[in-house]
Amino acid sequence: MDSKLATSYKNIMLILEYDGTGYHGWQRQRLEPTIQGVLEDRIQMMVHEPITLIGSGRTDAGVHAKHQVCHFLTHTHIDPESLRNGLNALTPDDILIRKADYVPLDFHSRYSVKSKVYEYQIWIRHEPNVFRRNFVWHVRQVLDVETMRQCVSLLVGRHDFSTFRSSGSGNMDPVREMIHAEIRGPEDGILTFIFEADGFLRHMIRNIVGTVVDVGRGRMGLVEFRDIFQAKDRACAGFKAPAQGLFLNMVKY
Amino acid sequence: MDSKLATSYKNIMLILEYDGTGYHGWQRQRLEPTIQGVLEDRIQMMVHEPITLIGSGRTDAGVHAKHQVCHFLTHTHIDPESLRNGLNALTPDDILIRKADYVPLDFHSRYSVKSKVYEYQIWIRHEPNVFRRNFVWHVRQVLDVETMRQCVSLLVGRHDFSTFRSSGSGNMDPVREMIHAEIRGPEDGILTFIFEADGFLRHMIRNIVGTVVDVGRGRMGLVEFRDIFQAKDRACAGFKAPAQGLFLNMVKY
Repeated sequence: MDSKLATSYKNIMLILEYDGTGYHGWQRQRLEPTIQGVLEDRIQMMVHEPITLIGSGRTDAGVHAKHQVCHFLTHTHIDPESLRNGLNALTPDDILIRKADYVPLDFHSRYSVKSKVYEYQIWIRHEPNVFRRNFVWHVRQVLDVETMRQCVSLLVGRHDFSTFRSSGSGNMDPVREMIHAEIRGPEDGILTFIFEADGFLRHMIRNIVGTVVDVGRGRMGLVEFRDIFQAKDRACAGFKAPAQGLFLNMVKY
Repeated sequence: MDSKLATSYKNIMLILEYDGTGYHGWQRQRLEPTIQGVLEDRIQMMVHEPITLIGSGRTDAGVHAKHQVCHFLTHTHIDPESLRNGLNALTPDDILIRKADYVPLDFHSRYSVKSKVYEYQIWIRHEPNVFRRNFVWHVRQVLDVETMRQCVSLLVGRHDFSTFRSSGSGNMDPVREMIHAEIRGPEDGILTFIFEADGFLRHMIRNIVGTVVDVGRGRMGLVEFRDIFQAKDRACAGFKAPAQGLFLNMVKY
């Protein structure tokens, strides 16, 4: 856009929480409900102009967010707080707009990201829990959690994560800085993986968790885990953990 | 049934956990999904004969159970553990059969009840929680929890609970023994009511909770609460708390 046009725009940032169970992920699809689709439609109803909602990244179908960030450019005179209240009234109750605010025009919810924090929850009791079923991966086997913690600590630092990316990632640079990686718990039957990185490859966390759980089950040792991590070959990794245990916890700028 | 017939029957008891969000309550309905309906259909698929599943009591639409007890008479030779595994494979994952076992023919899941324990959860933070939305009642106003605890303690003992019963309860004796009543928390944004009684009238807990929350909000005082409890008149009580905060926690025999 030219600078004259740009000055008439406002840039509005939203902070969201959502239960991804009922959605086909973030990205708008023609027929299926998605977070972006639902929000764009409701925002357009309020601001009476077409807008494009840009998220900090896409979440897959069934993945949740405790803190997702997105932004859109608009000419509206509705103040952010009224927009937030209106949107919370218009959106289904599995999406919550926690905050809405003006941000500088050069703020971009994806390009401006410094790091993101994800969490992955595993339910480790033998019996399933019907109340948590949409928010955990249920693993019945007894896990060697200490060896799993050692695997996860190997991931910290600047590494090529090719082993843990899914096909369809394109030719994107597979090197990422893993700032923090740990396993918390078990507490109340839940083991929680926490990962913070400057960026994540496609399905990277779900592939890491699936492989680390393979170690926990005794299907693979710590040395083997390190070898496949260093092999930079997707074919070596374990299987992809299911979507419903994954939460986007924070986006830092 | 005559005694010859009776001897060929087995009485099987099930202990269930369910997320009631997707169901129109316990009792079978012709068109809507219910817990009893789903289970009876699946049990009949396994035992190849018509059965009637009798629960310890009906739960309303949207009400959950951590421990519901039911039983049915059958001629089947399938052992209870195989029945449990088969049913868990056949039922949707919002219903879990935790246990299945033979019980004496004179065991009746409703008539043999000694007491039941219910729990009611209130979410008391200002901002809603999308992940707990189906399992709590969200109350935004600041609550005077200490006065609420005093109200609840008035309910313990043998009382006429007419004030808190809903119409449609028929002419059933309104006197119940409240064995235990307390409010736990707040913890992690949740206030939990616990009630144990030898029986509950229709909507009794939801009417109690709605009225006690009215006290917490300052719309009514402790003395007024005691007066309306003693008035034995449903018209005096506050409104009925919503179904989704309520859990059947235990049935004792």
